[in-house]
Amino acid sequence: MLVVMQQGATEEQIEHVIDRLVDLGFDVHRSTGLIHTVLGGVGGKYDFDVAVFEVMEGVKEAHRIVSPYKLASRGFRPGGTIVQVGPLAIGGDAVVVMAGPCSVENRDQIEQCAELAARTGARVIRGGAFKPRSSPYEFQGLGAEGLQMLRAAADRHGLLVVSEVMDQTQIPLLAEYADIVQVGARNMQNFNLLRELGKQSKPVLLKRGIAASIEELLLSAEYILAGGNYNVILCERGIRTFETYTRNTLDLSAIPVVKKLSHLPIVADPSHGTGRRDIVAPMARAAVAAGADGLMIEVHPDPDRALSDGAQSVRPEQFEELMHQLQAIALAVGRTL
Amino acid sequence: MLVVMQQGATEEQIEHVIDRLVDLGFDVHRSTGLIHTVLGGVGGKYDFDVAVFEVMEGVKEAHRIVSPYKLASRGFRPGGTIVQVGPLAIGGDAVVVMAGPCSVENRDQIEQCAELAARTGARVIRGGAFKPRSSPYEFQGLGAEGLQMLRAAADRHGLLVVSEVMDQTQIPLLAEYADIVQVGARNMQNFNLLRELGKQSKPVLLKRGIAASIEELLLSAEYILAGGNYNVILCERGIRTFETYTRNTLDLSAIPVVKKLSHLPIVADPSHGTGRRDIVAPMARAAVAAGADGLMIEVHPDPDRALSDGAQSVRPEQFEELMHQLQAIALAVGRTL
Amino acid sequence: MLVVMQQGATEEQIEHVIDRLVDLGFDVHRSTGLIHTVLGGVGGKYDFDVAVFEVMEGVKEAHRIVSPYKLASRGFRPGGTIVQVGPLAIGGDAVVVMAGPCSVENRDQIEQCAELAARTGARVIRGGAFKPRSSPYEFQGLGAEGLQMLRAAADRHGLLVVSEVMDQTQIPLLAEYADIVQVGARNMQNFNLLRELGKQSKPVLLKRGIAASIEELLLSAEYILAGGNYNVILCERGIRTFETYTRNTLDLSAIPVVKKLSHLPIVADPSHGTGRRDIVAPMARAAVAAGADGLMIEVHPDPDRALSDGAQSVRPEQFEELMHQLQAIALAVGRTL
Amino acid sequence: MLVVMQQGATEEQIEHVIDRLVDLGFDVHRSTGLIHTVLGGVGGKYDFDVAVFEVMEGVKEAHRIVSPYKLASRGFRPGGTIVQVGPLAIGGDAVVVMAGPCSVENRDQIEQCAELAARTGARVIRGGAFKPRSSPYEFQGLGAEGLQMLRAAADRHGLLVVSEVMDQTQIPLLAEYADIVQVGARNMQNFNLLRELGKQSKPVLLKRGIAASIEELLLSAEYILAGGNYNVILCERGIRTFETYTRNTLDLSAIPVVKKLSHLPIVADPSHGTGRRDIVAPMARAAVAAGADGLMIEVHPDPDRALSDGAQSVRPEQFEELMHQLQAIALAVGRTL
Repeated sequence: MLVVMQQGATEEQIEHVIDRLVDLGFDVHRSTGLIHTVLGGVGGKYDFDVAVFEVMEGVKEAHRIVSPYKLASRGFRPGGTIVQVGPLAIGGDAVVVMAGPCSVENRDQIEQCAELAARTGARVIRGGAFKPRSSPYEFQGLGAEGLQMLRAAADRHGLLVVSEVMDQTQIPLLAEYADIVQVGARNMQNFNLLRELGKQSKPVLLKRGIAASIEELLLSAEYILAGGNYNVILCERGIRTFETYTRNTLDLSAIPVVKKLSHLPIVADPSHGTGRRDIVAPMARAAVAAGADGLMIEVHPDPDRALSDGAQSVRPEQFEELMHQLQAIALAVGRTL
Repeated sequence: MLVVMQQGATEEQIEHVIDRLVDLGFDVHRSTGLIHTVLGGVGGKYDFDVAVFEVMEGVKEAHRIVSPYKLASRGFRPGGTIVQVGPLAIGGDAVVVMAGPCSVENRDQIEQCAELAARTGARVIRGGAFKPRSSPYEFQGLGAEGLQMLRAAADRHGLLVVSEVMDQTQIPLLAEYADIVQVGARNMQNFNLLRELGKQSKPVLLKRGIAASIEELLLSAEYILAGGNYNVILCERGIRTFETYTRNTLDLSAIPVVKKLSHLPIVADPSHGTGRRDIVAPMARAAVAAGADGLMIEVHPDPDRALSDGAQSVRPEQFEELMHQLQAIALAVGRTL
Repeated sequence: MLVVMQQGATEEQIEHVIDRLVDLGFDVHRSTGLIHTVLGGVGGKYDFDVAVFEVMEGVKEAHRIVSPYKLASRGFRPGGTIVQVGPLAIGGDAVVVMAGPCSVENRDQIEQCAELAARTGARVIRGGAFKPRSSPYEFQGLGAEGLQMLRAAADRHGLLVVSEVMDQTQIPLLAEYADIVQVGARNMQNFNLLRELGKQSKPVLLKRGIAASIEELLLSAEYILAGGNYNVILCERGIRTFETYTRNTLDLSAIPVVKKLSHLPIVADPSHGTGRRDIVAPMARAAVAAGADGLMIEVHPDPDRALSDGAQSVRPEQFEELMHQLQAIALAVGRTL
Repeated sequence: MLVVMQQGATEEQIEHVIDRLVDLGFDVHRSTGLIHTVLGGVGGKYDFDVAVFEVMEGVKEAHRIVSPYKLASRGFRPGGTIVQVGPLAIGGDAVVVMAGPCSVENRDQIEQCAELAARTGARVIRGGAFKPRSSPYEFQGLGAEGLQMLRAAADRHGLLVVSEVMDQTQIPLLAEYADIVQVGARNMQNFNLLRELGKQSKPVLLKRGIAASIEELLLSAEYILAGGNYNVILCERGIRTFETYTRNTLDLSAIPVVKKLSHLPIVADPSHGTGRRDIVAPMARAAVAAGADGLMIEVHPDPDRALSDGAQSVRPEQFEELMHQLQAIALAVGRTL
């Protein structure tokens, strides 16, 4: 903890800051510069709010030195984490592709997707059974029945299943049918949900919120890790910016940054990250080139008639071509697909 | 629904768009311009995704004409809605102040806040019992015990209670102790929670998410209204931007915009909106000047020792002075406090 | 200067950082914590890039302690600056209204605006002669002829003139006709222009760029001050965010923040800040309530036919009503209009 | 032009909109829907502001149908533009690397950079002689002398030169020494500069502003094209978002989007786009994978001692390794380096 006092801060103001640091268990080192007095705190608690110091009278700025997350930090496992999902290793040499429709709509649709995914080298099928939709008038998902269809199609084709959980009451159902439980961007800071996912053992795919910093993403992962579940896969899926041509701005720099700050694997979702089918392929290639451990891609047999997110779902023939391109890129960065 | 075709779009592409519009129940009017063909769809479904058309081959742009929300729109109740909470009218002539600590910490703290609030003219006491915190190592709230303390203090001083619900399992508890149930910014798109809140009758204070557009805020309100609960109060509490000096950027323009687009009352939260005690007062004054129906302000007897959000909590003497300033501003815009 | 080393940073890495600090003239204090080594630098140069340290091997974070601006900081003139423009004081008790059309279009238009401004209590007339337009096909301004019309109308009605300079070659012309030279948002970091404006004596109204932090605004002011011209008025005119209903998001919190960090006066421009005539009035009131020293408001006799920015120009009758409202708000915050 | 009237718009309001459309030269088609009246305008002027219609009474929304840029649009040259710079083709099969220091500092530094660039396959050397700096106390560049050094080093090693122009008065100097004149992000909307660059023939590398939408980037290109200079190369170099770990957020999706909307070549600048040396390489690879026609990369013999932007400059050995990686990626997307 470092607190820099303003030029001309009074002795009383400095003492007040020192008192608060001592209250929090810090040993305080006081250093008097030409212009500013700096107070360094060593030891002390983790659970305090650095902003409290920033607005104290006489304070210029305050900085937390120790990262607010510990279990998610690279230092905790310098060699990196490989999340093992049955036979599949996420975070190892192979780039893992998870593909499928936005929502499970019916048996036919999901069967076509599973067949395509398996044939082209994807290892995991995705598909939503519970859909968070901005409008109450939009399709909300098939629920448990959708999960059963997804599981059955995956089993027929030797695929694993990832599907989204919308709140903690749905965890048992998801744990029954899915191999990986997905936390959507809107739930990245649903802390009750994160806490419950930490208490169970299914791997969790945690998506970055559209307004979440990389640090906040890692703090949300920390909630799950702190509960004892270390099988967390992060996912970059676009942040909200002023640009409107794309639905979100896919922040691919988050991939190398997360690799540096954390030991957890990270995948990219160019479908949500762009919202436009016509640029999913170049962004998928870019994500692999940037070091992503995997991709989550929406594909639909007939996207123009999809019940949700059809605009960002690629057509089957586009998906097939993309898988070929991705193999070349993976090779170029020393990985396999 | 309006679809503008690209210059040089083929007849086949145009037909494909028309087919999809017809599938959705639209009567299609085709208009051939010098450069672009425009397709207008009349009637048709509400629950479709306009982006699906945007990425169809040959399409330049597509626009939804009818607002995606109906019950929340100004047209639905041109005269505006007054939410009646016991004796208190929110959305009428009086500007309603809701004040109190970020979290309920102990009996003493909440008693001091309640006494202050009642004495200075606030009508509602706020205080969190369940706290969504970015880090798992921070204080998470006192739970039910906190709600009881809050209720007791409010009753002693003739105040109403607003407190945050974190997920749908907590609704019964909140409904028992609070007069207004608050949905926090992180939960603005927790659609299961919104749907459940629509099925009960307690007024709901719905905060804008930090990355939510005004349209998305109104769509979230629509979830509650669609369930039959029309007692919804909106709250502007800051959006996330590139500026880092303030915790968020309080978007006061949302107040007149919501007044134009919707019939629902809207309050402002300058505490979360700025994250800094030292600018809460000017922003509170500005919110009233911009037409806010109320304010939510964090106050704490000893903010430097607050268990959460101390940086943005004003001191009791600051609060008292602010209430005087607000009376003058309210008067200047023809309202009372 | 403070550099926090990563946990496990090597002695070699620490030495490398110390060497660079010494190169920059800093006295280095080394403090070894339980987890992190912290290096404090005292004295040293101003003109270095803190990011260079952030990416050095073994470094966790680096912070500049001394503000990068000096002349613009509140500490330089704790009592605040009043910019005197002829008989007019900007930054004193009176809130100064600057009003007029986006562009000078013709003699009639500017005469009507000047008459309205003078009659209702505005003190300065605005009007662009050189217009920065996103598209090359839009109206680009009348140039010198426009400035002459503006000056003549102002003189007839006892008003002062503010008008925008687009590059340094135009300074002499602006200095001849205007009392205040405006630097537009797109030019906030046109450093050659700022430097030249520092060498002359006309007051400068410096607008915040749409992607500029408050610190960057103050750094741009520093360019002008460093040249010897202390007559700088800052202007908040909206920043770019994800919200699209308004053209920009007017960041009113910049007003109290600038008041805290700097001695310079600050005005608000709710016309550009919102881009919509229908919410200019509430945001103008809010700006005064937040402590603005003045307002810049676009008004046009016939906004639907304005050659530029008609959407954000209020009608004459709206302006008149707004001036009445502003008087009440100014009074409520202890100022005059 | 399409104007959608609000539900319940009066005949008078509709007539007012029609009148304004007619004034602008549009043929108006009126279509009365169940809920909304829609007015379509065919023909008409380019140079009007669509927002003027948005705020007219009774209007719900308004959309411009024809793109505001014409010469920059893909439709103008469906086959794409190759900018020929001496022997070098930008926008063809080969991915062009432009490398060099942020600023030209001295003869030795620039010689080392030129030798490295030429040896590893870069074709263009970059280096600033005039530096836009946020603070007036930072290094501002060597000016004409820097340009001479850059030219000499380039000539010794058979490289081309790109360097930044800060305002229109510097164009002759840049045109003398550089092969490509760069317009920096801060100047993307310096319209006087753009207009002058349109009147001369040197190729222009136009960087996207940190708050500029893709449409605004293309509109700025239009200024240059409209003057008769068709040799424009666009450059994505990061936009400003809420994420602070990186200096900017490199928006790689702009690459495929520009390829779709425009015929102009586009390169990426991962140095400015990230601000951090440690993630330049993955983002450079990603840019090529996304379809960039080239890269602009900052390299410095001793970045820790660079006079500007050292944090984002890679070391010579990092650059060499990166060039090998880029060859592999270029090959994987069917191009050469």
